[in-house]
Amino acid sequence: MIATRFTEEFGIQYPIVQGGMQWVGRAELVAAVANAGALGFLTALTQPTPEDLVKEVGRCQDMTDKPFGVNLTILPSLKPIPYEEYRQAIIESGIKIVETAGNNPAPHLPDFKAAGIKVIHKCTSVRHGLKAESIGCDAISMDGFECAGHPGEDDVTNLVLLPVARDKIKIPMIASGGFGDARGLVAALALGAEGMNMGTRFMATQEAPIHGNVKQQMVENTELATELIFRTLRNTARVASNSVSREVVGIEAKGGATIDDLADLVSGQRGRKVFETGDTEYGIWSASGVQGLINDVPTCQELVERIMQEAGEIIQGLQIATTTV
Amino acid sequence: MIATRFTEEFGIQYPIVQGGMQWVGRAELVAAVANAGALGFLTALTQPTPEDLVKEVGRCQDMTDKPFGVNLTILPSLKPIPYEEYRQAIIESGIKIVETAGNNPAPHLPDFKAAGIKVIHKCTSVRHGLKAESIGCDAISMDGFECAGHPGEDDVTNLVLLPVARDKIKIPMIASGGFGDARGLVAALALGAEGMNMGTRFMATQEAPIHGNVKQQMVENTELATELIFRTLRNTARVASNSVSREVVGIEAKGGATIDDLADLVSGQRGRKVFETGDTEYGIWSASGVQGLINDVPTCQELVERIMQEAGEIIQGLQIATTTV
Repeated sequence: MIATRFTEEFGIQYPIVQGGMQWVGRAELVAAVANAGALGFLTALTQPTPEDLVKEVGRCQDMTDKPFGVNLTILPSLKPIPYEEYRQAIIESGIKIVETAGNNPAPHLPDFKAAGIKVIHKCTSVRHGLKAESIGCDAISMDGFECAGHPGEDDVTNLVLLPVARDKIKIPMIASGGFGDARGLVAALALGAEGMNMGTRFMATQEAPIHGNVKQQMVENTELATELIFRTLRNTARVASNSVSREVVGIEAKGGATIDDLADLVSGQRGRKVFETGDTEYGIWSASGVQGLINDVPTCQELVERIMQEAGEIIQGLQIATTTV
Repeated sequence: MIATRFTEEFGIQYPIVQGGMQWVGRAELVAAVANAGALGFLTALTQPTPEDLVKEVGRCQDMTDKPFGVNLTILPSLKPIPYEEYRQAIIESGIKIVETAGNNPAPHLPDFKAAGIKVIHKCTSVRHGLKAESIGCDAISMDGFECAGHPGEDDVTNLVLLPVARDKIKIPMIASGGFGDARGLVAALALGAEGMNMGTRFMATQEAPIHGNVKQQMVENTELATELIFRTLRNTARVASNSVSREVVGIEAKGGATIDDLADLVSGQRGRKVFETGDTEYGIWSASGVQGLINDVPTCQELVERIMQEAGEIIQGLQIATTTV
């Protein structure tokens, strides 16, 4: 048991979050995370329509009585996404915690607040965190340079980013990026966060709805097995190292590549197929260096219990070290 | 008081290290660090000759009765450096702790060991740490991507690098890079290290033998005020952001730059002049994102006491959080 402002204000047993992950954040995983006492998020845009999202929330509610949330990632898109309808689907489903990511969530806040929904906004910089606080978000989830997916362009690691953010931002902060075990949880709390987010680590669980080959690949991969793509487009993403991501890095290294040049290689549908077929070389999929800390594929319950158990032991060890003469 | 294998095996009061810093690691700083109960290192190559190093060690011994060490950075160099003579100077000065950095320290280990000297080798990867352990080093100082100076080319941040290293390496480990306060110290210990190294933070102390303008610049700078230079030469260095380092980045971004193209801009003598004159825009000088955590220029004693006091409070807070129901 570790009590923080996050566990208290959000009513979650443990200070562990499984934030939004495209194609991964489905009911099976989110319900398992919730049942384990942590906070999971369904990913709204993994569902093709708002109606499908309503059904997915219902499926998850059928599998757990504990709180869970929905991630709404707001991105510029060629094909317009009906964000208002997704938002309405979230509200009508009875969800009480939303994780927003991408663009400024301000347009969505009045409706969420009116529905009594708490909003955690994902940020990659102190500046974005201050903005999220100023517009009324209830918490931030701060992504350091080490995170899978989009770390922003500042390249500030969580070891520095979290305490700097803590000194300037008052609302609860979830530490995100590079976290996969109890050592990370205690570090996150020491650095000023009220909880930690795990993405990559939750992908390598029994309940994650992705092919076993992908989980096994993460077990085998080391901390070095990531690539940063889209650096040259100033839309950096950290993804698992494979032939496709390395090809993208190679094309970008030559200079002048546009998103059109890379569109086929980085198609989200290819990433989705990786998860469905287990062909880890087929497309781009997000993962962090936390792969180097993954040695098994436990259930979410086993993972969360192990982390909480070991975190208690680490804190006990620190306490003993401070009292030893 | 926090006892670790590092404090016990190296006979140092606190698990805090001020590792080698070219032009900065002189007797005034190192003695102040030692007197504060931490472990400081003179930088051998800051002294123009081995004889000067002997004198500098003597100066430091005049200022403190507590243990301190010497950093010996082993680099390929156009102008041959008399490493054997520096090594002999260290041994004859009665130094009992050496920090090696750069190339493999194996050629120096037999003489150091014969003299009863403990060797801490600076590493930037698990692979290098395992090598250091296998050749008989007594400890490693592990530098993550966030460190000032040379982080290597792997770009693995300490949040991931330290626990992965801990799982594979048995000798004591000092966490280095991105550390500047008590939060970092507790995080380092939680992540599996036995102590933390601070470079940038110790530069902004009263006793650091560098111009006050540089210290003030570090107080004013944020976590964003660093540049990575020499990426294209695969000899990456993290340095303070200024007009010179940004110019280097700009030249490298065009592609094809050689060390000769950059030699004048990055001359070590220009960096030295920054520290002497306080003209922070004159040359390249190393600093990490820890600048974002620096808000004052205390004495080393004040800094170390503050960190130890606050670390105790953080650990106490973690302990309370785990027992709150």
